[in-house]
Amino acid sequence: MIKLKNLEEKTISKEKLFSGKVIDLYLEDVELPNGKTSKREIVKHPGAVAVLALTDDENIILVKQYRKALERTIVEIPAGKLEKGEKPEYTALRELEEETGYTAAELKKITAFYTSPGFADELVHLYLAEQLTPLDEKRELDEDEFVEVMEVPLADALKLMESQDIYDAKTAYAIQYLELQRAMQAKK
Amino acid sequence: MIKLKNLEEKTISKEKLFSGKVIDLYLEDVELPNGKTSKREIVKHPGAVAVLALTDDENIILVKQYRKALERTIVEIPAGKLEKGEKPEYTALRELEEETGYTAAELKKITAFYTSPGFADELVHLYLAEQLTPLDEKRELDEDEFVEVMEVPLADALKLMESQDIYDAKTAYAIQYLELQRAMQAKK
Repeated sequence: MIKLKNLEEKTISKEKLFSGKVIDLYLEDVELPNGKTSKREIVKHPGAVAVLALTDDENIILVKQYRKALERTIVEIPAGKLEKGEKPEYTALRELEEETGYTAAELKKITAFYTSPGFADELVHLYLAEQLTPLDEKRELDEDEFVEVMEVPLADALKLMESQDIYDAKTAYAIQYLELQRAMQAKK
Repeated sequence: MIKLKNLEEKTISKEKLFSGKVIDLYLEDVELPNGKTSKREIVKHPGAVAVLALTDDENIILVKQYRKALERTIVEIPAGKLEKGEKPEYTALRELEEETGYTAAELKKITAFYTSPGFADELVHLYLAEQLTPLDEKRELDEDEFVEVMEVPLADALKLMESQDIYDAKTAYAIQYLELQRAMQAKK
C-alpha cells in the first residue's frame, strides 16, 4: 500500500487502570499527527478464536450462551480466548471440543480480524473445521461457562440472524462466508 | 427459538471502575446457572455505525486511520460511534460526510452485530450508502481524528484483506457482503 501521510499517534504517557482475568484497561496520552494531544482509552485482550464447524451433512454447529455484557442469550459459533502461549489452531480445536463435544480431522484458517479497533486490540482468528467426529468422552467446559449446542442448516442460521438470535460479528461473518462459498459452488 | 434451559447469569453486585469519553468499565459479581458465583469484566460502549459506501462506478470508499489500540494504521469502511440520542442512520450519514466528503441519496440498513460479546456491549449498525455526491463544503472531522480517503474496486479491497491492511470485522463483513451480492447477481 502507498504511504501518503503519517497518521501515527505517539504515546506520551500510559497508565494501567485495571488488570483483569479477561481484559486490561489503559489510559494513554498521545501526540496527534498535528502535534496536539489527546487521550485514548484502550482495552487489551489476549485474542480469541472462532470455529465454523460443519458436519458431514453440512450443518453448522452453534452454541447458545448467555452474555452478561449484553444481558441476553445469543447464538454463536464456538469460540474462546487464547490462553497464554497457546497457538490459535490449538485453541480452536480445544474450544470446539470443550463447547460442542466434537473434534475435527480438518482445520483450515479462514481469516483473522480485529473486532473493535476503536478501543480494543482483540484479534479473532476464524477457522473452518470439517470431518467432525463426536468425542468418546466430553471435555470439561470452563467452570463459569454454560452453553447449549445446536446443529442447524445454513437456511436456519440465516433465520437466526434475522431474528437477532445470532447477533455477533464473528458468527455473522462465518455464516456469510458459508453463503458465499455455496453461491460460488453453484456458479460453477 | 426453542428455549431449552436457562443460561442466565444474575447480577449480585456491580462496580463502576472507570468512566471514560468512549467506554465505561464495570466489574460484576454474578450468580451462574448452577448457583455458583463468578466475576464478569464488562465494557460499556455507546454503539457505532459503519458504512459500505459505493460510488456510481462501484468502487468502495475506504478510510485509512491510525488505531492506537492496535499501534498501527489500518484501512476501514467509514465508521464512528453513536452520539447520545442520535439515530444510527443519522450517525451513518454524518460519519460518511465527515470522513469522506461524500453524501448519499440512498442509505439502506444491511445488518447489525455485537463486535465482542464476551466482554463488551458495542453494537455496530452497518449501512449501504449509494448514489454518492461530493459535498460542496467538507465537514469537519473530530479534532482528534485523522483519516485518509481511498476509493478502490472490490478486487483491490480483497487484496487489502490479504495484506492485512484491512483487518477489522465490520470492514471484512462489508466486503464479503459485496462479494456475495455480486456472486448472486452473476448467478442470475
